[in-house]
Amino acid sequence: MANAPVAVIAGLGSGTGTGAATARLLAKEGYAIALIARGSDSLKAIYNEINIAGGTAVSFLIPSYSAVDVNTIFDQIRARYDGQPIRFALYNVGHGVWKPFLDITPEDVQAVNQTNIEGAFAFSNNVIRAFLVNEIDEKGKRGSLIFTGATASVRGNVSTSAFSAGKHAMRALSQSLAKEFGKQNIHVSHAIIDGGILTNLSRQRRNDPAWEQNEDLRLSPEGIAESYLYLAKQPRSTWTWELDLRPAHEKW
Amino acid sequence: MANAPVAVIAGLGSGTGTGAATARLLAKEGYAIALIARGSDSLKAIYNEINIAGGTAVSFLIPSYSAVDVNTIFDQIRARYDGQPIRFALYNVGHGVWKPFLDITPEDVQAVNQTNIEGAFAFSNNVIRAFLVNEIDEKGKRGSLIFTGATASVRGNVSTSAFSAGKHAMRALSQSLAKEFGKQNIHVSHAIIDGGILTNLSRQRRNDPAWEQNEDLRLSPEGIAESYLYLAKQPRSTWTWELDLRPAHEKW
Amino acid sequence: MANAPVAVIAGLGSGTGTGAATARLLAKEGYAIALIARGSDSLKAIYNEINIAGGTAVSFLIPSYSAVDVNTIFDQIRARYDGQPIRFALYNVGHGVWKPFLDITPEDVQAVNQTNIEGAFAFSNNVIRAFLVNEIDEKGKRGSLIFTGATASVRGNVSTSAFSAGKHAMRALSQSLAKEFGKQNIHVSHAIIDGGILTNLSRQRRNDPAWEQNEDLRLSPEGIAESYLYLAKQPRSTWTWELDLRPAHEKW
Amino acid sequence: MANAPVAVIAGLGSGTGTGAATARLLAKEGYAIALIARGSDSLKAIYNEINIAGGTAVSFLIPSYSAVDVNTIFDQIRARYDGQPIRFALYNVGHGVWKPFLDITPEDVQAVNQTNIEGAFAFSNNVIRAFLVNEIDEKGKRGSLIFTGATASVRGNVSTSAFSAGKHAMRALSQSLAKEFGKQNIHVSHAIIDGGILTNLSRQRRNDPAWEQNEDLRLSPEGIAESYLYLAKQPRSTWTWELDLRPAHEKW
Repeated sequence: MANAPVAVIAGLGSGTGTGAATARLLAKEGYAIALIARGSDSLKAIYNEINIAGGTAVSFLIPSYSAVDVNTIFDQIRARYDGQPIRFALYNVGHGVWKPFLDITPEDVQAVNQTNIEGAFAFSNNVIRAFLVNEIDEKGKRGSLIFTGATASVRGNVSTSAFSAGKHAMRALSQSLAKEFGKQNIHVSHAIIDGGILTNLSRQRRNDPAWEQNEDLRLSPEGIAESYLYLAKQPRSTWTWELDLRPAHEKW
Repeated sequence: MANAPVAVIAGLGSGTGTGAATARLLAKEGYAIALIARGSDSLKAIYNEINIAGGTAVSFLIPSYSAVDVNTIFDQIRARYDGQPIRFALYNVGHGVWKPFLDITPEDVQAVNQTNIEGAFAFSNNVIRAFLVNEIDEKGKRGSLIFTGATASVRGNVSTSAFSAGKHAMRALSQSLAKEFGKQNIHVSHAIIDGGILTNLSRQRRNDPAWEQNEDLRLSPEGIAESYLYLAKQPRSTWTWELDLRPAHEKW
Repeated sequence: MANAPVAVIAGLGSGTGTGAATARLLAKEGYAIALIARGSDSLKAIYNEINIAGGTAVSFLIPSYSAVDVNTIFDQIRARYDGQPIRFALYNVGHGVWKPFLDITPEDVQAVNQTNIEGAFAFSNNVIRAFLVNEIDEKGKRGSLIFTGATASVRGNVSTSAFSAGKHAMRALSQSLAKEFGKQNIHVSHAIIDGGILTNLSRQRRNDPAWEQNEDLRLSPEGIAESYLYLAKQPRSTWTWELDLRPAHEKW
Repeated sequence: MANAPVAVIAGLGSGTGTGAATARLLAKEGYAIALIARGSDSLKAIYNEINIAGGTAVSFLIPSYSAVDVNTIFDQIRARYDGQPIRFALYNVGHGVWKPFLDITPEDVQAVNQTNIEGAFAFSNNVIRAFLVNEIDEKGKRGSLIFTGATASVRGNVSTSAFSAGKHAMRALSQSLAKEFGKQNIHVSHAIIDGGILTNLSRQRRNDPAWEQNEDLRLSPEGIAESYLYLAKQPRSTWTWELDLRPAHEKW
């Protein structure tokens, strides 16, 4: 797989969610996977899982999503994959803070700024520059960059002041990039995840087997990953910037 | 194919656009195709094309998209496909009128009302009732109903007063249906087609070989059809109500 | 008041809502009021109220909001106010239907089409043509046309399939008109009324004195009317197309 | 004016725009004006202008819109106006950066984060806490908080990646606050300024007397200020969260 295209996946959370599922799926599709995460446990878990399953993954532990740290990680990625084109990137990073406004601390705001904006800009900068040197592939693309959004990407609400500010900002970035770089055959997309995702974390929090087992009630990371793969495969004549995703029975 | 699921495709335009491409693609996927159109030429062309290619299509010539005419056609469809479940429906009908507001005639408004609203409601009513008696399939679905929208679905503009009124109305209908019938595992989607589609009509109008040949510049009906098939196949845990589609180089 | 500007107000509902309050307020501001409504009782009530209070109102009973009926009424209005410029128009007409989708009848759809689309287009056509012959006034305007919208203007929901279709269509019309005729100093606006309005009808339906008396909980027609007057007075350098209005404590 | 309500105006730009016009107008309405700005020249100019005209203004020079600096300034404001209620606040601060994405520097991103997010959160925190101790006034309000937005608040575009990210974030904050604090009679609004504003800066940049003199072509700061005053005066039964403002002839 020396010439395999590289997929950079940033943000693995607890290791059982969207980032992990996307990494696994793209590994099966033949991508070399560059995993970026702040947590070494989830990094190791996905790394092992993919390599054991016959895929190729490399882990990049990132201390934070500051611009400096993101740039450093991309230096490592470029060094590691010299000659292999980066063709896919997922920015699945965020700071999940849901609090009454007066309980939001300056640290919360800083964390939102760093993960949703500073990090997203630095990540996008590295990804776009990498894409620009690629050949256009048979689908008409130099690369696909996807951002994981949420309901809060399009609506502020009670207790989402900080979370929705970050998510709105990232959506604006994704739309600007889609418009600016579409002309260079770079495909930027934004997915509005509108509902709860089944992860180890949400399992624990909810402790609700009925919810876990009923696929009508919660999003599956695998379903989201399939959507991302679909976006990556869209032909040049029909590109989607934004789609929403929710389980069948979601009230919205 | 006596038990093949039925796909009802309404709206074939000149016979070389979104409706036709979707019919062809779904025929290959094993659907029995019920074609509804006002024009007998395009009906015959697609009918022949699908049946010659080994698919199964039946034509239903509709005089108009009045509620009465739509209901009559569905009586015929139900009679013809007795025992075969309707599993997919596309409402690809509209009245393309782009004029300065003061040139819009009462007839234009009536045509918009009939195609985008009266017909869309009657079509949806028949489709939803048909879906409700289906078993839930392995994807977790009783059926998929898709509406073809446009940029004008989300933005009124100079010269689109009538067109965008109709398209906005249809989008509202699709969102209401998605919310109301998701709980019954009926999947309703809306596609915002944001750009020019390559059809025989647009070929003639533009007479611009560069535009025709450059897939970065115009939507292909086949690409749209693939998107519709993707929506139809989304698993119950990750359904999309709305996505936009445009060619890579589109300015938006 | 032979030269008073004319304000055309269409839609009086039960006679105690937005249309009535706007008529009363504009009468105090010196407009000659042309009242259009389907109900003779509310027409008479507002007519009497305004004329007794020293204003000038004329009633125009309209059988329906068909294009023909709207055009006929405007013939009467033009005849009655020969020489007086129409400077303000409010389209406050709708068909309030909230039902599960499968209970929506073709008659409901027709009523929505007629009130929200056919009537809105015919009303706007007459109003815009009247405005175009006006001088630009000291505020920089030939006239103000306002549409009363609702939450359903921007969101389809369970039980609002027909209502939201009509409201979305009217919003698209208003945006198209604002864009097309701004250049001719015609100001078109759309108000999203997001909450319950205190009218005789809502009083009866709710029978909830706490709700009636608490201005934090419900919209007042007078407050809406003041907003409409504000829009009409906006100077040419700062025009609003759309604003939302809701009571202080509304959950949204 | 020992008991005059206080209006806090943050962001004076070149001293001839929206912040300055709002400060002047509210001074005439009887508010004691607390001016916050990074530039001492514009601070002095507005300060002098208001006090000479018989109003009351106090200047607060702020080194940056970091949370620490904003909190420090509010300590000074609270000390200065001990006993006078803060009733109005305008956050008119931003970082106007329009560049191709690859030219956006980490410093640009930091500046956007600080002005549009960190500063906006800290400002809002101080303002909301000040409002919460106010009595509800005769309009039904404890206070009005307004944010100045832009077209970029609702749409990302080529060359607005950083600017629109910040503006989107601020809009999300304003919507969250409006929803959370409406119940406590705190009115939060967001104005989408959709066009060029006539300021000394835009005069110089454009050097286009026709544009300057034609009020149909550009927003006037005074018109925006009047809109803000209108929002502040809206009665509790009819509050606007968001309105757009543009000149009559603006293409949009």
